[in-house]
Amino acid sequence: MGTSLKYLAVCALCTISTSTAIAHTSNEKNPYIVHRQGIYQVAGGHMNTLKSILMLGHPAKDDISYHAKAMLEAFKHHGNAFPEGTDKGKTHAKKSVWTDSEGFKEQGQMAGKAIMELIEVSESGDLKLIKTKFAGVGKSCKGCHDDYRKKGS
Amino acid sequence: MGTSLKYLAVCALCTISTSTAIAHTSNEKNPYIVHRQGIYQVAGGHMNTLKSILMLGHPAKDDISYHAKAMLEAFKHHGNAFPEGTDKGKTHAKKSVWTDSEGFKEQGQMAGKAIMELIEVSESGDLKLIKTKFAGVGKSCKGCHDDYRKKGS
Repeated sequence: MGTSLKYLAVCALCTISTSTAIAHTSNEKNPYIVHRQGIYQVAGGHMNTLKSILMLGHPAKDDISYHAKAMLEAFKHHGNAFPEGTDKGKTHAKKSVWTDSEGFKEQGQMAGKAIMELIEVSESGDLKLIKTKFAGVGKSCKGCHDDYRKKGS
Repeated sequence: MGTSLKYLAVCALCTISTSTAIAHTSNEKNPYIVHRQGIYQVAGGHMNTLKSILMLGHPAKDDISYHAKAMLEAFKHHGNAFPEGTDKGKTHAKKSVWTDSEGFKEQGQMAGKAIMELIEVSESGDLKLIKTKFAGVGKSCKGCHDDYRKKGS
């Protein structure tokens, strides 16, 4: 057991994702930072699969609804993601997350709304409409990044 | 519409995850490569959240089951993830994925089994047991990476 857990401590840093290069360089130990980054990683993964389907022609159109719903579900498990003190460490979050917490909360609500709008149309078969709503989600990501995420992180 | 989709083409590369630095440098256009990397990114995100809960003390113990199940669900949406010809491009996959497809398939089945074992104990409240099964999932990731993933990718 001791050995397997020691092993895990190394392996869990690698994970099984495209973010390996990042994860390899990150030894962050703050559970809140690692947890929220994991949630964003899940959401980012769903966005990438949606991109492959909607923008690059991957045939899994029947999965659009699954990915949109799973992304929302991930955010529902964010919990108290930015508690006081978690501005220290390997975090992408700007100080404005805490100094402008009302604005940050509002951006989060807008992102949630954009995802729900994508879910609403995700089984319509109207790809043009679905792409527009997907663009809306992307816009809500960028809006939040611009104001609350460190540049280049 | 034209503008928003042009915008999206940029934004979707960024996504909203910790993999931004990777995504920024990746212009991969093969839908199968982007799709499978998105799925692995989802799984990696759930592994990181599980790490934060099980190894770093994040309090969201009630979410262990959700993350384990969501990880399995993501893999169920992998589809035909490594079709012929998708060894070209910005892929982490070694040639062995195709030259040893039986072995690769077997590793995938072992990973699925390890995740199911984690799910089975995820609501037991027995953290020691859950950590052991989580280690089993990590081990299955590493086993596959060692044989089928390019070093350093």
